[in-house]
Amino acid sequence: MNAITPILPAGQVATGPIPGSRKVYASGVLHADLRVPFREVALHPSAAEPPVTLYDPSGPYTDPEVAIDIEQGLARPRDAWVVARGDVETVQGRAVKPEDNGHVSQAYLVPEFPGRRPVLRARAGAAVTQLEYARRGLITPEMEFVAIRENLRREQLRELIRDGEDFGADIPDEVTPAFVRDEVARGRAVIPANINHGELEPMAIGRNFLVKINANIGNSAVASTVSEEVEKMVWAIRWGADTVMDLSTGRNIHNIREWIVRNAPVPIGTVPIYQALEKVGGVAEDLTWEVFRDTLIEQAEQGVDYFTIHAGVRLPYIPLTAKRVTGIVSRGGSILAKWCLAHHRENFLYERFDEICEIMRAYDVTFSLGDGLRPGSIADANDAAQFAELETLGELTKAAWAHGCQVMIEGPGHVAMHKIKANMDKQLATCGEAPFYTLGPLTTDIAPGYDHITSAIGAAMIGWFGTAMLCYVTPKEHLGLPDREDVKQGVIAYKIAAHAADLAKGHPAARAWDDALSRARFEFRWEDQFNLGLDPETARAYHDETLPKEAHKKAHFCSMCGPKFCSMKISQDIRDAARNQNDVAAQAGMAQMAERFREGGGEIYVPAAD
Amino acid sequence: MNAITPILPAGQVATGPIPGSRKVYASGVLHADLRVPFREVALHPSAAEPPVTLYDPSGPYTDPEVAIDIEQGLARPRDAWVVARGDVETVQGRAVKPEDNGHVSQAYLVPEFPGRRPVLRARAGAAVTQLEYARRGLITPEMEFVAIRENLRREQLRELIRDGEDFGADIPDEVTPAFVRDEVARGRAVIPANINHGELEPMAIGRNFLVKINANIGNSAVASTVSEEVEKMVWAIRWGADTVMDLSTGRNIHNIREWIVRNAPVPIGTVPIYQALEKVGGVAEDLTWEVFRDTLIEQAEQGVDYFTIHAGVRLPYIPLTAKRVTGIVSRGGSILAKWCLAHHRENFLYERFDEICEIMRAYDVTFSLGDGLRPGSIADANDAAQFAELETLGELTKAAWAHGCQVMIEGPGHVAMHKIKANMDKQLATCGEAPFYTLGPLTTDIAPGYDHITSAIGAAMIGWFGTAMLCYVTPKEHLGLPDREDVKQGVIAYKIAAHAADLAKGHPAARAWDDALSRARFEFRWEDQFNLGLDPETARAYHDETLPKEAHKKAHFCSMCGPKFCSMKISQDIRDAARNQNDVAAQAGMAQMAERFREGGGEIYVPAAD
Repeated sequence: MNAITPILPAGQVATGPIPGSRKVYASGVLHADLRVPFREVALHPSAAEPPVTLYDPSGPYTDPEVAIDIEQGLARPRDAWVVARGDVETVQGRAVKPEDNGHVSQAYLVPEFPGRRPVLRARAGAAVTQLEYARRGLITPEMEFVAIRENLRREQLRELIRDGEDFGADIPDEVTPAFVRDEVARGRAVIPANINHGELEPMAIGRNFLVKINANIGNSAVASTVSEEVEKMVWAIRWGADTVMDLSTGRNIHNIREWIVRNAPVPIGTVPIYQALEKVGGVAEDLTWEVFRDTLIEQAEQGVDYFTIHAGVRLPYIPLTAKRVTGIVSRGGSILAKWCLAHHRENFLYERFDEICEIMRAYDVTFSLGDGLRPGSIADANDAAQFAELETLGELTKAAWAHGCQVMIEGPGHVAMHKIKANMDKQLATCGEAPFYTLGPLTTDIAPGYDHITSAIGAAMIGWFGTAMLCYVTPKEHLGLPDREDVKQGVIAYKIAAHAADLAKGHPAARAWDDALSRARFEFRWEDQFNLGLDPETARAYHDETLPKEAHKKAHFCSMCGPKFCSMKISQDIRDAARNQNDVAAQAGMAQMAERFREGGGEIYVPAAD
Repeated sequence: MNAITPILPAGQVATGPIPGSRKVYASGVLHADLRVPFREVALHPSAAEPPVTLYDPSGPYTDPEVAIDIEQGLARPRDAWVVARGDVETVQGRAVKPEDNGHVSQAYLVPEFPGRRPVLRARAGAAVTQLEYARRGLITPEMEFVAIRENLRREQLRELIRDGEDFGADIPDEVTPAFVRDEVARGRAVIPANINHGELEPMAIGRNFLVKINANIGNSAVASTVSEEVEKMVWAIRWGADTVMDLSTGRNIHNIREWIVRNAPVPIGTVPIYQALEKVGGVAEDLTWEVFRDTLIEQAEQGVDYFTIHAGVRLPYIPLTAKRVTGIVSRGGSILAKWCLAHHRENFLYERFDEICEIMRAYDVTFSLGDGLRPGSIADANDAAQFAELETLGELTKAAWAHGCQVMIEGPGHVAMHKIKANMDKQLATCGEAPFYTLGPLTTDIAPGYDHITSAIGAAMIGWFGTAMLCYVTPKEHLGLPDREDVKQGVIAYKIAAHAADLAKGHPAARAWDDALSRARFEFRWEDQFNLGLDPETARAYHDETLPKEAHKKAHFCSMCGPKFCSMKISQDIRDAARNQNDVAAQAGMAQMAERFREGGGEIYVPAAD
């Protein structure tokens, strides 16, 4: 293990707007102080179109007006909302213990995040969850923030295109704060928002909202440092990650996590059993409820927004995995399986579930009920072990809801295309429409090095069917730890999957983005085409490899066909010809048109100019 | 324009086996001289499994026993099969004309491929197509070759897993030569195999065979040279392209194509209208039937295996595109639209279709009926123009079949997920089950630079629904000309899509590949995992980035979890524990097992060892 670089210098994270985009904010109506961010792409004047508004999880890092100082952390506007509700108290907070950072000696210790902030907790007996507020009919600032954010200023669109198949979802034309409240109240959406995460820009995860994506980061026992991890978080949200999970498993876990949360405008998720295991020296058998409970409180006080809890890995299900091709592939699942077997006892997370709920409720940490028995290969998909656990997750969902806790459900894994929809249907039926949060699924096992693609296929499909959040997979899956470029490739593959799903569901405002880009493409507005893309820099670089000159960005052709041969150019000639004829051509339906054309002997056209 | 490098030195193309793979051949029964190639991956002895047999379109380039000499071209075993049928004659052949190479002067002329070979043509009145032979009940060497190739030595598999949803396809457990013949006879499969392409290793495209992929290469008016193009072909088939289309549009087209065909073990497709347009100086209005006809004969004599013919772009359909967001995006479609409009006349390819069929039949060039009106954006998918053309393609399919010609049908384009299946269903109904050959489709427009991914999603889905061949899209789509790396990325994304489709269809032997890789993964046979992957070099390189040492390739952990934390390791402990108990655990169903477990008090398990 190398000595840690003492501190993360400010500016080591990527800042500044995405090229061609501008950060804009909308304010609230019920809560006037809200500043809801969007990415706005202005188009060339020749387009005669309003700017395009895109969803923007990148936080203040892409706002040139905001001075970024990693050692300060982000501003905490949400603290005021939480305190104003009058149901929290400031507590002493748990002291950091040596085992929180793996007993690492001073020389190797990642410095603590500078300064202390007050730790908040629900007053005794209070339920401070968005679910509880929604049930009471309250529209919190978080809910209004989400409504504005999801609505994407769609009142500015020239038309709302509702062309899709949503498999029974209930997506409104307009997202109102009341709609958000109602979705949260019935458990169909979650707003992961720990009361100790004041830096958060709230977002929703639910079938009737835009499909979200999660990026995993985290150091491991083998590699990576603190500066890399904070930068990876900033980098992941820059390209579109809606939440980030810190899956660190090495030492310094506590301190690294504090740096991440204090600088994160998106919800942060963790798998607390990972840290608990570190605390008992990596020996699963030595895990205890006390260690786990202490870890939950430690992380809840830091402001982690959702916890993966593998309470569905029940003892009787473990034998069902014995004949699998790939056994148990979830780290959390295998840790608990090992504990269960070693002690001949039921999973203690299952047995202590009510106590876990009490803790989650006191900070509004959202459950992400882990699928510890998810399939790790095509062969194991949709088997008895997987579906037995899913039944238990349905039971636990109801238990958590009874405590007022927010819940989402994790899902597979590796699933061939013909078995994907059954996963969604079964999850909806079993878990009362609690949001589904799936890893991929990977649609084949044969492409190590390309599993962002094998899984983007499955992710797009399951997103279309109703999954609310897609956990990304990077090209390094199964092979190694993702670096910065892998994180970007994973995020972009998943933004594609999520948007393809939104389009297919007929989500209002989804189509507007594609249409704006396609009009730019057709009209040879190259800069607009780049700027509207998920990755303007790469699009521009690819274009410039063949046609590097500035003049070529105004050229009415591209390198594929060359100047004489351009189909877009010819199409425009056709359109111009049609327009010259007072749009006669375009007005009529096909059959009538063919008839008229024959009668007219072709006179509705003038030869297109060269 | 730069002067052309005089000759392509042998060895500039990638040769040698894929790491960890060995080229093996199977011989025929009806035709003993067949040498049907496979890629065989031997596994580590600890696996106790037979080698895995994979489909292999890479040709002699991956066979270290074959001396590759680009100036010689490949061997021509197929000449003997063609001549033996007694229905062809050697003809003088059309002399190369200056316009065939764009009137390029000697200094810039790509050298002619060395040596002349006899040009074959059907004897007067003879139909020398695989379709005609099949109708007569003949099993040609090409058909037996295909049967053995598609069967993938599946008699060596320990089990045949038929788990899938094939949407009414008719995929047999075993591919017999008679099955191939019957599929070809009813037009449900094609074997693109020009009688002048003696270098060909025959392959089939059809819904009841493995899903195939095509890679486009070709120089353009703006960039690229002959050596690049031949190398791109070899490179594309190395990674798995089943056919290659030469879409060259610049000068030297004739000579470059000859180099490509003489070195191609896979079917080569072209769009003859591109070269015809070059011959008339790029002015669509100046195209004539005579120029087009001469181009068809020129290319048929060279051995091109399939032609894209945009005969469905009928004059009355053109106005239907006027209100589209992206008009006509097919190059061929727009050329013909321009011709139609300029002359106020019906598409001459439509009017001359019978004459085209006569030419195709004389060389067995397969039709690929072009979708000149395919949608170029999400907004334009499944519209009246697109489906009007498809109806005409159905009419033309029947006309071509009447002439004994083989036919496949090209399809979109840009289509959101919820509109993909309608394309397949309509194509099947309209075109009598002739093979569908689609470009993507791209499932969103918003990711320039990543359209290999936006389209792999759609390609996997439409392949599952029944598309027989998927035309790849590279990351440079819409932006520039693909280079070597783009070709590889496009091919691999499409191999993923095609295999995901085969899996979901329940194609026999498809699952065997995934299972072999997953077993290797579970058992930490790292070398086997790399070697079974689509791209062993990349998988190995990614692994080695984090764990470079040779010892780590034998390690029973990976960099994601580290040695103490490995879920696969824990799963193996569980399995071992189960095995120690005489597999009691694995034998029972879930409910029984849970019961027995409770009764037994957990004694069926021993604590897993560390």
